[in-house]
Amino acid sequence: MGPGPSNVSPEALAALARPITGHLDPAFLAMLDEIADRLRTVFRTSNAMTFAVSGTGSAGMEAALVNVLEPGDEAVVCVNGVFGGRLAEIASRAGAEVVRVEAPWGEIVAVDAVRQALQTHPNAKVLALVHAETSTGVRQPIEEIAAIVAEHPALFVLDAVTSLGGVPVDVDDWGVDVCYSGTQKCLSVPPGLSPITFSARAMDVVRGRTTPVRSWYLDVTMLEKYWGEERVYHHTAPISMLAALHAGLRRVLEESLDAAWDRHARLGSLLAAELCARGFSYVAPEDHRLPMLHCVRLPEGMDEAGVRARLLTAFGIEVGAGLGPFRGECWRIGLMGYTCSERNVLTLLAALDALMS
Amino acid sequence: MGPGPSNVSPEALAALARPITGHLDPAFLAMLDEIADRLRTVFRTSNAMTFAVSGTGSAGMEAALVNVLEPGDEAVVCVNGVFGGRLAEIASRAGAEVVRVEAPWGEIVAVDAVRQALQTHPNAKVLALVHAETSTGVRQPIEEIAAIVAEHPALFVLDAVTSLGGVPVDVDDWGVDVCYSGTQKCLSVPPGLSPITFSARAMDVVRGRTTPVRSWYLDVTMLEKYWGEERVYHHTAPISMLAALHAGLRRVLEESLDAAWDRHARLGSLLAAELCARGFSYVAPEDHRLPMLHCVRLPEGMDEAGVRARLLTAFGIEVGAGLGPFRGECWRIGLMGYTCSERNVLTLLAALDALMS
Repeated sequence: MGPGPSNVSPEALAALARPITGHLDPAFLAMLDEIADRLRTVFRTSNAMTFAVSGTGSAGMEAALVNVLEPGDEAVVCVNGVFGGRLAEIASRAGAEVVRVEAPWGEIVAVDAVRQALQTHPNAKVLALVHAETSTGVRQPIEEIAAIVAEHPALFVLDAVTSLGGVPVDVDDWGVDVCYSGTQKCLSVPPGLSPITFSARAMDVVRGRTTPVRSWYLDVTMLEKYWGEERVYHHTAPISMLAALHAGLRRVLEESLDAAWDRHARLGSLLAAELCARGFSYVAPEDHRLPMLHCVRLPEGMDEAGVRARLLTAFGIEVGAGLGPFRGECWRIGLMGYTCSERNVLTLLAALDALMS
Repeated sequence: MGPGPSNVSPEALAALARPITGHLDPAFLAMLDEIADRLRTVFRTSNAMTFAVSGTGSAGMEAALVNVLEPGDEAVVCVNGVFGGRLAEIASRAGAEVVRVEAPWGEIVAVDAVRQALQTHPNAKVLALVHAETSTGVRQPIEEIAAIVAEHPALFVLDAVTSLGGVPVDVDDWGVDVCYSGTQKCLSVPPGLSPITFSARAMDVVRGRTTPVRSWYLDVTMLEKYWGEERVYHHTAPISMLAALHAGLRRVLEESLDAAWDRHARLGSLLAAELCARGFSYVAPEDHRLPMLHCVRLPEGMDEAGVRARLLTAFGIEVGAGLGPFRGECWRIGLMGYTCSERNVLTLLAALDALMS
C-alpha cells in the first residue's frame, strides 16, 4: 500500500512465469498488436502510435519529451511536486528552454498561471502537466487547461503514471498529444514498462525535426517500425514484461474502466474518512484529492518512521514516506489497482488501530 | 535457438512469478546488493558502480556512451556489424564526433586499424568495441586492442551483450572502463535489463563533465545514489525483472563461469562440425567464431525463410534470420545459456535432417 508499485495481479504474475518466445515470433507480434489495442482503450484514444516504452514510467517521461523537443525549444512545465520537477529537468536536458509554472506542493496548478505562461510564450513547443502528482496526492483538473492549450500551438504532454486505470484519463477528448503512464500503479503489472501514446500531430512534429532525437533507445520514429506493420527489429523487446502487461490490461478491461474508477473512488473515500477520524489530515484540498494516493500528515506525536517500520515488519503492510517538504511529516498510502480492495483498507485500519492504541 | 532471447532458466521464471515488494523495501535493497556482487563476479571486476540498467541491452549501450561523452568529444567506434553501427549512431546522437574504424561484416576489427585511429585521434574520449557481434557471429579478440587503448587516454567501452557468461569477459584484466551486457543471452533471464559496470576512472570522467548527461533516466551519478548506500529514490526499479536476474545469476555462478564457458565451447564446436557436415558454412573465420552465435550460410538451394518457418511451426525451434548483407542468405543460430544443451543441439540437427531429406 505504498505509492507504487502496487500488488501485481495474479493474471500478470502467471504471465510472467511462462516460457518466452522470440521478439519476432508471430505469436508475440500478435500479442503486441493486442497490447496496443488494449492501451488505446485504456488511454481512450485512437492514436496509431500507442505502445509501451521498454523502461519504467520515468523512461516514458523521457520518451515523451525527448522526441518532441529540440535544442532551443521553449517548454512550459507545470511544477507542484516531484514529478513536475522531473519533467522540467528532463526537458532541460533535452536542450529546451524551460518555463516553469509553479504552484506550492499540495496545491493544483492554477488555470490562470498556465494561460499567462502560454500567452507570454506563444511559441512554446510543449505544455507539460502531471495529472496525478504522486508526491502530494493532488489530482490536477485537466479540462480547463486542455481548452487553453488547444488555443496555442504547444503540444499537450500529460503525465498519467499514477492516474491511468484509477481515474478517467481521456486522451482524445482532452486533446492530449503525448500521454505516458507506468505499469506498476493502477494497472497492477510490475514496474518496468511505460505505456505511451502519441497523437498524429505529435508524430508529425517528431518527423519534422531538424535534429535527430537525442536518445536512440527512445526514438519513436524507429519504435514505430517495430510496433507497426513493418516489424523492423529495433531492440529486443522485454518479452516477459509485455506478456504481463497483456494479461494485466485484460484484467483491467474485463472489470471495465468505469467499474475500476468507481472502486477507486469508493474505497478512496472510505480510507480518507477513516484516516481523518483517526487524526490524519490531507495535504491536498478535498476537491483535489486522488483516490489512489493518500498523502497525509500524521496525528500529533506519532512516530513517522517507527510506526511505518512496524506496519511493514509486524503486518506486512508497506506505506510510503513523504517526499521533499513532507519528509518525516507525511505518509503516502497507495490504493492502486489490485491493491485497491476493501480488505486491504480494513486491514490497514486495523493495523493502525493496533499500533496507535 | 535464435540470436537471443535464449530460453529462460527455470530459476528465473520462478522468481518472476513471485509477488513483489516495494523498491525501497529492506529485503529488496539487500537483493540489489547481491545482484551487484554477482554481477561483479560475472564481469570479473571490483568496480563499485556495477548494476543493471532498467532497460534492454541497447539501453545499456546508450547508458555506456551518453554518460561519458559530451558534445564535441571524439569517439573512436569499431564497426563490423549491426551493433558496432549502433554504437556509432548512439555516440553521434550523444553529440560526439565519431571516428569509425571499419571492417567488413564477418571479419574482426584489425588491431592496426585501432592503433592508427588512436594515433590519429590522440584526444579521443572513447574507444568502443563489440566483443561478440551478434549480426555476424564474430568473436573479437580483446587483449591486443586493450593494450593499445591502455596507452591512450581514451576510455575503453566494451559491448559484452552476447558474450557475457558464454566466453571469458575480463573487465579488470582488460582495463575495460565501461562494459555492458543483456540479460537475455547467456544469462538466460528475459530481456529487459542491461548489466553494466563503470570503472572508477569512468566515474571520474562522468563526475567531471561540464554539461549534464543528456539522459536523466540513464544518468549514473543519480543511479549511483540508489544502488549505493544512500538509497535515494531515482526511478521505480523493475522489481520482478531484478528478482529474475538475481535468480539467473545465482544459477550461472552455481554452475561456475569456467563450467559455463566449457559447455558453450564444447557444444558450439559440436554444432559447428555437424552444420558443416550438412553443407552449412560460417561467415566468421574459424579462429574468430562465437560458440553461442552461429551465423551460417545455407546449403545451396535451401529455402531460407521456408525452412526457418517450418523449424518453428513443426518443431517449435526458432532460429534467426540474417541481418544486413546476410538477409536471405544466412541463419543465426543461438546456443546461449540455458538453451546451450546437448539435447537442443541434437534436436535441432534431427529437425534439420528431417526437413532436408
